[in-house]
Amino acid sequence: MAENTARPGRIRPAPEGLPHSANMAGRRVFLRRALALGGGLAASTASRAEDLSRNLPPNVPEWQTTLGAPILAEPYGVPSKYEANVRRRESPGLTRTPQSSVAFTPLQNLFGIITPSGLHFERHHAGVPLIDPHQHRLMVHGMVARPRIFTMDDLTRFPSVSRIHFIECGANTGMEWGNVAVPTVQYTHGMIGCSEWTGVPLSLVLDECGVDRKRAKFILAEGADGAALTRTIPMAMQDDVLVVYGQNGEMLRPEQGYPLRLLVPGVQGVSSVKWLRRLKLGDVPWNTREESLHYVDLLPGGVQRQYTWIQEAKSVITSPSGGQVILDRGYHEISGLAWSGRGRVRRVDVSTDGGRNWRTARLQEPVHRKALTRFGCDWTWDGAPALLQSRVIDETGYVQPTYRELRAVRGTRSIYHNNAIQTWAVDASGEVSNVQIAT
Amino acid sequence: MAENTARPGRIRPAPEGLPHSANMAGRRVFLRRALALGGGLAASTASRAEDLSRNLPPNVPEWQTTLGAPILAEPYGVPSKYEANVRRRESPGLTRTPQSSVAFTPLQNLFGIITPSGLHFERHHAGVPLIDPHQHRLMVHGMVARPRIFTMDDLTRFPSVSRIHFIECGANTGMEWGNVAVPTVQYTHGMIGCSEWTGVPLSLVLDECGVDRKRAKFILAEGADGAALTRTIPMAMQDDVLVVYGQNGEMLRPEQGYPLRLLVPGVQGVSSVKWLRRLKLGDVPWNTREESLHYVDLLPGGVQRQYTWIQEAKSVITSPSGGQVILDRGYHEISGLAWSGRGRVRRVDVSTDGGRNWRTARLQEPVHRKALTRFGCDWTWDGAPALLQSRVIDETGYVQPTYRELRAVRGTRSIYHNNAIQTWAVDASGEVSNVQIAT
Repeated sequence: MAENTARPGRIRPAPEGLPHSANMAGRRVFLRRALALGGGLAASTASRAEDLSRNLPPNVPEWQTTLGAPILAEPYGVPSKYEANVRRRESPGLTRTPQSSVAFTPLQNLFGIITPSGLHFERHHAGVPLIDPHQHRLMVHGMVARPRIFTMDDLTRFPSVSRIHFIECGANTGMEWGNVAVPTVQYTHGMIGCSEWTGVPLSLVLDECGVDRKRAKFILAEGADGAALTRTIPMAMQDDVLVVYGQNGEMLRPEQGYPLRLLVPGVQGVSSVKWLRRLKLGDVPWNTREESLHYVDLLPGGVQRQYTWIQEAKSVITSPSGGQVILDRGYHEISGLAWSGRGRVRRVDVSTDGGRNWRTARLQEPVHRKALTRFGCDWTWDGAPALLQSRVIDETGYVQPTYRELRAVRGTRSIYHNNAIQTWAVDASGEVSNVQIAT
Repeated sequence: MAENTARPGRIRPAPEGLPHSANMAGRRVFLRRALALGGGLAASTASRAEDLSRNLPPNVPEWQTTLGAPILAEPYGVPSKYEANVRRRESPGLTRTPQSSVAFTPLQNLFGIITPSGLHFERHHAGVPLIDPHQHRLMVHGMVARPRIFTMDDLTRFPSVSRIHFIECGANTGMEWGNVAVPTVQYTHGMIGCSEWTGVPLSLVLDECGVDRKRAKFILAEGADGAALTRTIPMAMQDDVLVVYGQNGEMLRPEQGYPLRLLVPGVQGVSSVKWLRRLKLGDVPWNTREESLHYVDLLPGGVQRQYTWIQEAKSVITSPSGGQVILDRGYHEISGLAWSGRGRVRRVDVSTDGGRNWRTARLQEPVHRKALTRFGCDWTWDGAPALLQSRVIDETGYVQPTYRELRAVRGTRSIYHNNAIQTWAVDASGEVSNVQIAT
């Protein structure tokens, strides 16, 4: 089953993991049906139309004539085998070892705002530890009156909260700083996911330990993986931070930090430390390896931008998107995702002419703060070349920048925090590809 | 791995699938720690406390000294092996064949409002068909000007919407009509799930076919399974109904109707016909097998209540719940779920004394219409026996009834639509069991 069936016919998806130039092979064998929603969708075959004329159902499919699979064929359910192509993917050659690597979320296949936990991007620095939750501990120390070691039992006994938030790696869309036209939205924007997270407000845990709120200005969070990944979080963010054990209704997945992680909503993903084992309170940032050697932005003139916590507002069209082929003229819904690390998405605009004209998109309600927001926009494709763009405005009034605007400030040598407007080019044959337009 | 670790220490879970009387074996070997949240949570061991006194981290766990699993060890992610006990379960002996059966959602292990797709209850009448989405068709006929056969391609091309809704089987909590004290909340209330569903508004599909809105008052929906499960839906509900292909961000799971199902929000689950292949418009209800022989309520006096579409407001405490053991006195959060087929949950009250006194619970925001709503309530257990209850009031002002109130109207011989207040008894040893109190 080589083909992805998530949006099976409207747009032909890119074959798995192939470079852009290979995505188009065989396209012309597809029929171009001249459908338009307003003009009526044609019945699929003449024989079925005959069935209809006798007011009888069409031929009964084979699977309606037999018993199906028994109950609990899969006690823990899995997708249909016809969806095997919808999966996370590694970018070949991007990283040197399979333990310090990244796998991307297939955004082109997803609906709504929840990312299925099995498809949520993963990024680790020393592989995924297999942690026994009965043995796992969280230590809180430093500028606190009562240092503590918590078991998972202790933590799940606190009052819990559940909230929907995105997590985006600071390096998402990082390859495009260097004008590399990564072929698909899975690789351009797939280091993001959005889940319903459940856990304990960090402030409750800190209160329990008698945090010294006059002196303690920063928190060091450490993971229990082989990298002991360590990040500084400002105390000013504490009200929004959760100590998380649940994701999308169940316990965290191993690659998401099982059994415990930090969640710092709106902040680059590395700060949401996975396999969380230690929180230390202090009065200055720690300047650890992952905030001095890595996760800094090289600006024009050689200055490093450090401690860039917030993920600014960003959006991307996921359908149609790079590597897909539009098979028919006529009606299509342009669909995509928008988000802001500063709060709610206020508005998303869509352009089909490279940013000359904009229309306001529909937003999926309710719009959650610091969460993915699905947008949709009607489009009738007339068969002419088009340049598809989306632009988000968040509740602070911030407008997603163009590449030209972003590069004027940040240059071209960064890896992190690329939130520029993405452009997908549609050519006259319906092929969609990644282009960058310096407007 | 016999034990469930989802809320590992706060409450000891019931062993898998055992009858209630066996759940308590071995309980007394557990230490009863006298913890209270306000009084400070003790450090776990003396040796760790010594570590703290030197301001050093405790002994580094083994998994922090090695590389973990490589990226994409599971291209489609799965839960930790330590969560193997968190799974759907069949009630032994409840049904005669594994194709016409039901598997229950482990509500006692879940957080928030989203049910993981892999744990969503399943109910089928002829097993789960394996449908090739490229071959699947939806026919719309009857009182329409333009009968149509749609491919999946056609349907995914319509403008899409995503909404969070519950699906509850009409027979959920059905065994309790006969005063059978089913041991755990998985078996009492586990025929419910809540997902972010994505699809096409039914009204758009009907408009496309030129539905005759003057004559057509009812819709017949038929599934493509071996049972050809068939239900009548009133046209009056059409504005809320979706033709669904997505669940929690990805394509429907096979047991949820892959590749296409109906979703009739707030209505008993059987109406949300899975593997949807046919919609016929007519002017009278069809009175099919599944709405005359089954899915009717036997009332006192022998009258059958038929076409009971709406699932009235209902709630249940999921923690602590039947089969669990409360190990410690002191602070516990009482947590549970509430829902209404008529709209939003307005308020949930919690009682710890069998309904004499009530307190208003916290609700997880935002509250969605016709969706699960998570509630929480602080509780300090003093070690005395307690009777835990929850009571929902929905936005129409409807109040969840007691068993006495429900039985006065509906008798004791029904199978469907039991939405009475659930009572969990906590005894002095912390054991939690299912009791019914006719108040």
